[in-house]
Amino acid sequence: MSLKDHPILKAAKGEKTDYTPIWIMRQAGRYSARYREIRAKAGSFMDLCRNPELAAEVTLIPIEEIGVDAAILFSDILVPVEKMGINVSFVEGKGPVLEPKIETLEDVDRLKVPEPERDLPYVLETIQIIKKRLTDRPLIGFSGAPFTLASYMLEGGSSRNYIAAKSTMWNRPQLWDALMSKLTDTVIEYLSAQIKAGVDLVQIFDSWMGVLAKEDYETFVFPYTEKIVNELKKRHPETPIIHFGVNAGHLLEVNNRLNVDVLGLDWKTEIPFALKRIDKSIQGNLDPVALFADEKTIEEKVRKILEEGMKARGHIFNLGHGILPKTDPEKAKFLVETVHRVSRELRR
Amino acid sequence: MSLKDHPILKAAKGEKTDYTPIWIMRQAGRYSARYREIRAKAGSFMDLCRNPELAAEVTLIPIEEIGVDAAILFSDILVPVEKMGINVSFVEGKGPVLEPKIETLEDVDRLKVPEPERDLPYVLETIQIIKKRLTDRPLIGFSGAPFTLASYMLEGGSSRNYIAAKSTMWNRPQLWDALMSKLTDTVIEYLSAQIKAGVDLVQIFDSWMGVLAKEDYETFVFPYTEKIVNELKKRHPETPIIHFGVNAGHLLEVNNRLNVDVLGLDWKTEIPFALKRIDKSIQGNLDPVALFADEKTIEEKVRKILEEGMKARGHIFNLGHGILPKTDPEKAKFLVETVHRVSRELRR
Repeated sequence: MSLKDHPILKAAKGEKTDYTPIWIMRQAGRYSARYREIRAKAGSFMDLCRNPELAAEVTLIPIEEIGVDAAILFSDILVPVEKMGINVSFVEGKGPVLEPKIETLEDVDRLKVPEPERDLPYVLETIQIIKKRLTDRPLIGFSGAPFTLASYMLEGGSSRNYIAAKSTMWNRPQLWDALMSKLTDTVIEYLSAQIKAGVDLVQIFDSWMGVLAKEDYETFVFPYTEKIVNELKKRHPETPIIHFGVNAGHLLEVNNRLNVDVLGLDWKTEIPFALKRIDKSIQGNLDPVALFADEKTIEEKVRKILEEGMKARGHIFNLGHGILPKTDPEKAKFLVETVHRVSRELRR
Repeated sequence: MSLKDHPILKAAKGEKTDYTPIWIMRQAGRYSARYREIRAKAGSFMDLCRNPELAAEVTLIPIEEIGVDAAILFSDILVPVEKMGINVSFVEGKGPVLEPKIETLEDVDRLKVPEPERDLPYVLETIQIIKKRLTDRPLIGFSGAPFTLASYMLEGGSSRNYIAAKSTMWNRPQLWDALMSKLTDTVIEYLSAQIKAGVDLVQIFDSWMGVLAKEDYETFVFPYTEKIVNELKKRHPETPIIHFGVNAGHLLEVNNRLNVDVLGLDWKTEIPFALKRIDKSIQGNLDPVALFADEKTIEEKVRKILEEGMKARGHIFNLGHGILPKTDPEKAKFLVETVHRVSRELRR
């Protein structure tokens, strides 16, 4: 089978598949003992992201351990941000810390737009190593979207209420536009380089877009993501694009105007509700906590999602957000097997 | 004017008002210097909740300082939980800590359903003091809803992913039902006692319901809230009930089946979207972070919400979630004035 005929790529493009393909956000993450082992010997989390040999090894773990249909590049959305000139560190129990915070137009002027070949060679090398080893399944590349990255840069890390991000957006439109524009250029070059290095499709994570009211999203965020998608489609018309964020059911109609192939849904965004608003393929949307339920409950929930997903243009199964660190790997494996088995059964 | 003709009560019941009334969730909170002063001399946060004289004083602060149309009892949703037999403490920067966590059916069996007159006399006394001093505006009573309270009790505090709550719900239905039933009885008695002590309307906070997929909410949560509402309406048919939670746009159609008067909306749940799904009065829904914007932006956002709200059965203005501790009190005052001025203008 040519990789082009792989169910994930076909589902993304709205073509029929024999079963519903599945991958899992954060599938190469902390819930895996093998991951924790490699992570421990790599040094810091960012060191692991910068080590092509180990990052490739980590990327391939879930292919073998739980049998997902695609690999996703092991990295972090803040990897390119570091190369813009911001120090990024991960503090246990606190999440990422970014220094210095962006506060003035001068701070934005000082930011560089990284040239991936020069500034992020380890990411491209990781992709090349994976592509040599993984020949029968697609590799997914990814980037954060400008809003989510801008939030981290303005807040200096994770945030509960996004006061710095939102008040910059409303009160300092020039600073906001300068920052968002620089991030837009960064994301375009970063994803384009990943595609040239070999990834088969890309996901844009606008993880936190759901904290915005619809009108704010439309005015201050959507145009930048739209520019990224249009430029990528111009440069790489064959590469499917997935767009994803949580708590974003209220933004579906807006995001359906993006020239992407797939819209990711969280577990609160019911598939029938989404299908009334969008005509893209869908990705999702099991509650990540459902993997803490018994197998019967998991199977019931999976079956419902698969049945609903068959009415979509195309369906890639996933959780509605990243897999949780405390998840039992056996449950993740059970999920993959169940999605494959039940989706074949439903097609009969 | 009789209190019965107060705009908040009229808006709750869907009657015409001369302007759109407003109160603000957490309006007697940390953003007020006067509050922080009283809080400092009260001892712990729970001590303040248990001190009728000081709790009444705190309740009345925003009436004077920012001019809201109603007071809301100063208390915490965990106040009755403490009297069920759980130790509740507030740890700086961590939020509430509940000990012991509920883990077995025996733990639930040990829980008491508090008798408010005997176990929570200070709450009722606080209400009586406020009602003596506040004669021209309504006093709002409140309680957490069973799901939100159960989450705290099963998780032992605040939670990011609600793994304990959801996995109990799915994997141990008997334990879940026992706990939710006991909380249902607790909430009925607690709100009923508040109404008898003098509150003019009540709000049920199911703050975290939005973390549930719709089918889980319908199966495991809605029936208990429904029982509370029906029992309160039987005992106190004249007292309006408001129901509120965040990130819950996907639950609107389900909650419209509750026999409540008002459904609260967060800022992500657009009013026109809500009005297609519900026929109750609405409450909301300005982004709390909008109070960090300049006055022009605030006024634009307020105007849009007021215009949309005029199409509802009735509209009580509020933020879409609690006011944030770092809010400038002057901005809160500006909000109240703007809501009053613009809503009068729109009615002309």
